[in-house]
Amino acid sequence: MSHAPSASLSRRHRTVRDALTTRALDALVITAPSNVLYLTNFTGSSAILVLAAGSLCFITDFRYVTAVSDMAGTAHQCPDLELVTVDGSYDATLARVLAAHPWKRIGFEAAHLTVARHHWLAATLAAGGSPAAELVATDGLVERARVRKDDHEIATLREAARRLSHVAAGIGALVRRGATERDVALEIDVRVRRAGFERSAFETIVASGPNGALPHAAPGGRAITEGDLVVLDFGGVYDSYCVDLTRTVSVGPASTRAREVYAAVREARARAVASVAPGRSRFEIDAAAREVLAGHGLGEAFGHGTGHGLGIDVHEDPRITRRRPDVDAGDEEVATGMVFTIEPGAYLPGWGGVRIEDDVLVTDEGVEVLTDVTTELIEI
Amino acid sequence: MSHAPSASLSRRHRTVRDALTTRALDALVITAPSNVLYLTNFTGSSAILVLAAGSLCFITDFRYVTAVSDMAGTAHQCPDLELVTVDGSYDATLARVLAAHPWKRIGFEAAHLTVARHHWLAATLAAGGSPAAELVATDGLVERARVRKDDHEIATLREAARRLSHVAAGIGALVRRGATERDVALEIDVRVRRAGFERSAFETIVASGPNGALPHAAPGGRAITEGDLVVLDFGGVYDSYCVDLTRTVSVGPASTRAREVYAAVREARARAVASVAPGRSRFEIDAAAREVLAGHGLGEAFGHGTGHGLGIDVHEDPRITRRRPDVDAGDEEVATGMVFTIEPGAYLPGWGGVRIEDDVLVTDEGVEVLTDVTTELIEI
Repeated sequence: MSHAPSASLSRRHRTVRDALTTRALDALVITAPSNVLYLTNFTGSSAILVLAAGSLCFITDFRYVTAVSDMAGTAHQCPDLELVTVDGSYDATLARVLAAHPWKRIGFEAAHLTVARHHWLAATLAAGGSPAAELVATDGLVERARVRKDDHEIATLREAARRLSHVAAGIGALVRRGATERDVALEIDVRVRRAGFERSAFETIVASGPNGALPHAAPGGRAITEGDLVVLDFGGVYDSYCVDLTRTVSVGPASTRAREVYAAVREARARAVASVAPGRSRFEIDAAAREVLAGHGLGEAFGHGTGHGLGIDVHEDPRITRRRPDVDAGDEEVATGMVFTIEPGAYLPGWGGVRIEDDVLVTDEGVEVLTDVTTELIEI
Repeated sequence: MSHAPSASLSRRHRTVRDALTTRALDALVITAPSNVLYLTNFTGSSAILVLAAGSLCFITDFRYVTAVSDMAGTAHQCPDLELVTVDGSYDATLARVLAAHPWKRIGFEAAHLTVARHHWLAATLAAGGSPAAELVATDGLVERARVRKDDHEIATLREAARRLSHVAAGIGALVRRGATERDVALEIDVRVRRAGFERSAFETIVASGPNGALPHAAPGGRAITEGDLVVLDFGGVYDSYCVDLTRTVSVGPASTRAREVYAAVREARARAVASVAPGRSRFEIDAAAREVLAGHGLGEAFGHGTGHGLGIDVHEDPRITRRRPDVDAGDEEVATGMVFTIEPGAYLPGWGGVRIEDDVLVTDEGVEVLTDVTTELIEI
């Protein structure tokens, strides 16, 4: 279970209920686990939430019933939650819940519900007790509430970033000549857990030497070697919230070329961070990093976006990227309370790569860098 | 990348192509990551595969292009793979691939594709170059091929189970009085990784004392205490394949009640394992475990299914459960080459729980238990 105070959950419910009213929806079926967590503090693997004007129906199976009941009376309980235990399948139980209410326009999460589940549910409602019910596709109703973090979330992310920075400050000692990428990744994962994280937020990246040119390299059997640059990208989940950090270290004195590339990426990071402020376009923040790298002849070497939102998901809105008309649906401007990564990089096939990543919070004043560890090149 | 030999991949392609012919489909769009991996050895996080009679089109983004190219010429390369790099978004790239071919009936995976993606794709095809193309919902075309493992998969799962058994043989030493559940879970995860697994297959469960009554308890801050039963459930991913094992240990001498419950669960496991054979109904295998527990007055205490299939996913077909008409779509009979868990348990709220889990392979002769570690009650 996560630990948002009950009052925060109530505010979140109100925000989503307002969105339902705007769209003339009687209820919303929430199937995305991270959205269920956001609205209930529930961290189990399976649940469906049905939010309506006057009710909040929570469907889960026997494995989680005790855990949900145990929340009652605590400071983190979900207000007004009506618990329904799965009988048969989740979707059959959901169909019965929907049929037991007079709802006509029932929203569902089109970016999460599969075609097969939607088809089954629509057919079952039509054949069963709710022929007048209409399933209405919705897009990001809960996600839009999640993009600006509330006080509880900001406090959680700040603490998570503090703990991850502590891990990052020690990675120089983990990168030992002769150790494999896999060894180093395991040691990082252990330190992440010992720092109080529930788990790593994604598969830790340790990409040494030429492997550094693959932005998403899985750590392998390659041994850390004198002269390598090593990209270390790792994250943790703390009280259900994700933070994410990358540093690149040099094994022995860095070559002139390595220093140049590193300095360019470091400058790109600094310029992108400095460009963050409420009302700023996320495409401009991306451009701030991209222009620096292009100025150093590394424009082609930076193939990914400058950052991504952090929260219950490790990749969520806002996306700090180039403008891509066929992909970008979210709002353009960043706003107070948003938390995202700034992570420019340069990847040179056959040579290696550099990436530097920090996590930032948009504040009324501009920006607060949540992670706190040196960006100077570390030579071990 | 995973390591199925190219010849295995060719056979898998042929099986799915035969299924397309049977359904009069010109092509199949494969979006489920585990199905993409099964057909290509690709283990990255993002890709779409389009399989047709005469072509195999693999769409991925720049992050993974080098990794895919590097497979060429190896014993594990995917035969006849045509690599397409994402330009814009994945789905826009997919739409262009589909429009560039004369396919009319294009299957998609209805249990994986979301309503939003399906809607966008259908609208784009209709508005663009393929007004005659029809998207056809399919159900489990690739999953049905995956349920019976081929020689490479069986060898991989056998080796994975051997390694996990080795970890399991050492868990008695990890469960120390005073250690928290979280400490023990971390030590298990480290041993799983050191045993050569890429990662844990799911969040390790260490449920001590009364927490053992929650079948899916997250490990917490409770300290292991004299008199506890401790349920330890953990798994690993080895060359992309998942294995899963549970043992329950007693901290100090077990009480009479603990011995009774343990003996009942152990007998249920043995009876279920002994009931496995080609042609046997998966509901009968479940019943074999369930009847033993009911005979000991523990029928109500066993709330979950007896087992689940193992493979690229840690939970896949066949499901060894009670017959549930509204859920069970898969075939009823188990067959040679299927691999699944046998994991009966008994959960007594306020008291605790016991679960014993092994992994079995259905063979022509009956059953081979892949995991190999004592099922006797260990008192530490």
